[in-house]
Amino acid sequence: MDLLTPWGGSRIGLDQDEMRRHNRGAFLRLVHLSGGISRAELARRMDLNRSTIKQLTAELSAAGLVREVSQTDNRHQGRPSPIVRPETQRIHVLAFDVAVDRLVAARIGLGGVILDRKVAARHRSGVDLDYVVTTLAELGRQLTEAAPSTSTCVGLGASYCGMIRPDDGVVRFGPDLGWVDQAFGAELARRLGLGQRVLVGNEAHLGALAEHLRGAGMGVQNLVYLHGDVGVGGGIIVGGTVLDGDAGYGCELGHMVVNPHGGRPCGCGSSGCLEAEAGERALLDAAGRPAGVFGRDAVRAVADDAAAGDADARDALDYVGDWLGIGVANLINLFNPAVVVFGGMLRDVYAGVLPRVRSRVARNVLPVAKERVRLSVSALGDDTTLLGAGELGFSRLLRDPFSATPQVSQTAW
Amino acid sequence: MDLLTPWGGSRIGLDQDEMRRHNRGAFLRLVHLSGGISRAELARRMDLNRSTIKQLTAELSAAGLVREVSQTDNRHQGRPSPIVRPETQRIHVLAFDVAVDRLVAARIGLGGVILDRKVAARHRSGVDLDYVVTTLAELGRQLTEAAPSTSTCVGLGASYCGMIRPDDGVVRFGPDLGWVDQAFGAELARRLGLGQRVLVGNEAHLGALAEHLRGAGMGVQNLVYLHGDVGVGGGIIVGGTVLDGDAGYGCELGHMVVNPHGGRPCGCGSSGCLEAEAGERALLDAAGRPAGVFGRDAVRAVADDAAAGDADARDALDYVGDWLGIGVANLINLFNPAVVVFGGMLRDVYAGVLPRVRSRVARNVLPVAKERVRLSVSALGDDTTLLGAGELGFSRLLRDPFSATPQVSQTAW
Repeated sequence: MDLLTPWGGSRIGLDQDEMRRHNRGAFLRLVHLSGGISRAELARRMDLNRSTIKQLTAELSAAGLVREVSQTDNRHQGRPSPIVRPETQRIHVLAFDVAVDRLVAARIGLGGVILDRKVAARHRSGVDLDYVVTTLAELGRQLTEAAPSTSTCVGLGASYCGMIRPDDGVVRFGPDLGWVDQAFGAELARRLGLGQRVLVGNEAHLGALAEHLRGAGMGVQNLVYLHGDVGVGGGIIVGGTVLDGDAGYGCELGHMVVNPHGGRPCGCGSSGCLEAEAGERALLDAAGRPAGVFGRDAVRAVADDAAAGDADARDALDYVGDWLGIGVANLINLFNPAVVVFGGMLRDVYAGVLPRVRSRVARNVLPVAKERVRLSVSALGDDTTLLGAGELGFSRLLRDPFSATPQVSQTAW
Repeated sequence: MDLLTPWGGSRIGLDQDEMRRHNRGAFLRLVHLSGGISRAELARRMDLNRSTIKQLTAELSAAGLVREVSQTDNRHQGRPSPIVRPETQRIHVLAFDVAVDRLVAARIGLGGVILDRKVAARHRSGVDLDYVVTTLAELGRQLTEAAPSTSTCVGLGASYCGMIRPDDGVVRFGPDLGWVDQAFGAELARRLGLGQRVLVGNEAHLGALAEHLRGAGMGVQNLVYLHGDVGVGGGIIVGGTVLDGDAGYGCELGHMVVNPHGGRPCGCGSSGCLEAEAGERALLDAAGRPAGVFGRDAVRAVADDAAAGDADARDALDYVGDWLGIGVANLINLFNPAVVVFGGMLRDVYAGVLPRVRSRVARNVLPVAKERVRLSVSALGDDTTLLGAGELGFSRLLRDPFSATPQVSQTAW
């Protein structure tokens, strides 16, 4: 509860330097997330006076991070407040996504705009670290070569489906590709050779972050994101921050046991996990698809068949929807989120599973906690995890705009 | 993950006033939580220089909130750094606890010391708002009368077993006493007549807070607390803050469905909830106790019988332990906590259920998430929720030491 937040706040003191750093970061975050915001609105949102905002605008403009433009819209009375825009064409990150069926790299400009992207297909299994980093580094090289020389790369972020050690980007456990303790972040950084760290995040954590900042959860501080691919991953925003837990391994909602006695075996070694009962294989099995049939198209075919009136496909969606609903109800009781977002493969089955999910929520969630909760499909589609990786890439710049851009800050001071 | 926290931070700007307020609050929190801390240690923990710490000490001493004493321990070399202590005898809150079998009020001094306490028994059911607030207000009156005239009351906090609206302390849903939308906080404040708000929190949220600040989770930023009484409540600390969710109703882990098909009916109207399978009634039923037998002594009797070799009691603890273990494993997968704390009635069965809980954790938790997690019994015993209510009472003072104590700050300026 808000009353208890003083306890959660930093016990670290603030000095003038830290205060200025904080204000520059907060200012740049607002510009980055809005894509353009008036000085008057910045003053209101930051609760700072106009002269401080003017000074911050001047500092960050001089550093080449933002640009001030006159407001052309004159519908409002009075002198229009200048608009501060991010320098999208001058400041970028490289974002990488190890998706279930492809490897993606993108150049994303400040403001969250995907400026360029390269994609390579990948097999679902038998893909080792060397193949992944070699391919991604080549895509990254192509992006860098194609980038204008006037644009500066301020960070590198990558999304991976697995449990990631935040400090060094090691994939501790990635059941999708069978990776255990693979130095993904360090190896990708080495191959890229840009002299920068690659920050690596769990794909569902990053998907949650992107939906929170730019998608179905904008303006919401508490959000649960379920990401379906082979399994069911989770990212949970608590009070505006990704729940990471003690070591970065939180949010594993796919391994919440919902069917403890006699449940389907799960890839994690347990059984009755949410992803075992409601993941891709469970759906395809329930729809009577043979073992060799899998992937996004197969999942869509079940959804299409059900929509066309096929009873087996309809039953399969109901079966999966019921398990998914039990999981979602549990998550609502635990997190009291404003919105639950379904992303990845779950977008394709969303309409089909919704009746059963709603029914379980109605039955299992405590009366007060379901008053305002909303269910939603991901708003960012296939770019959710990629955009989240981009935000991870920008995180250092946004925490401390000057120290993260030595080459940029030199022009400022 | 820590890399993503810049997003969770406030987007509000800081000015000089806010910076000073923050520093005073952070300083007073450290003194309050430590009970006494050297100026050198304050400088180190707050990452501020010694002259700023000296100034903060002077300001808060003048306000009557802390007191500087010479360090008598001279084992360390060099000039000893003065110790800053909270003014425990001059600054207090009143804390109230609506526990399952009693009503408790306490006067708690700055530093978290229980200075005085009054207790009234209560029946388990048929207790209405009027009875509770009348009784608590009378206990509060006795505490106030007995308090020295030199001590100032800076806040009022109360713990209640139910879903509480943080803004006004309304009990939205309190299944224990069958309360729905009862204006507990406002009514208790009115009866106390001290001209101060009563801040009300869910008992398990407050238990989690107290264990985090002063108990089994000290120094830990991610903690799951399970509080057993009639049901099983939950409080979860995420990144050092109580998880409240969108409207204050998060952490309802007792209503996580663990046995969806054929589970025991739950007081919430659903079935198969963790508290239905592992709460007091489940344990007593499993041990063959008749319906009229309930309460703490009955639970302890089962634990004692099991320890003495009674097979039925042993089986009952195994049964409950298995369900509890499924719930705990799910919570570890979701929250990646450093510690899981068992409080309330669960302390009495802790030793008895531990083997099954451990076995489920070993089987169901993902390998990486269980590397460091610790299981623990509550360290604060029966005072957990009361101390949490005290911390809630102190929260305003600790957020802004001067504005929360008008009577005190007058002496300072």
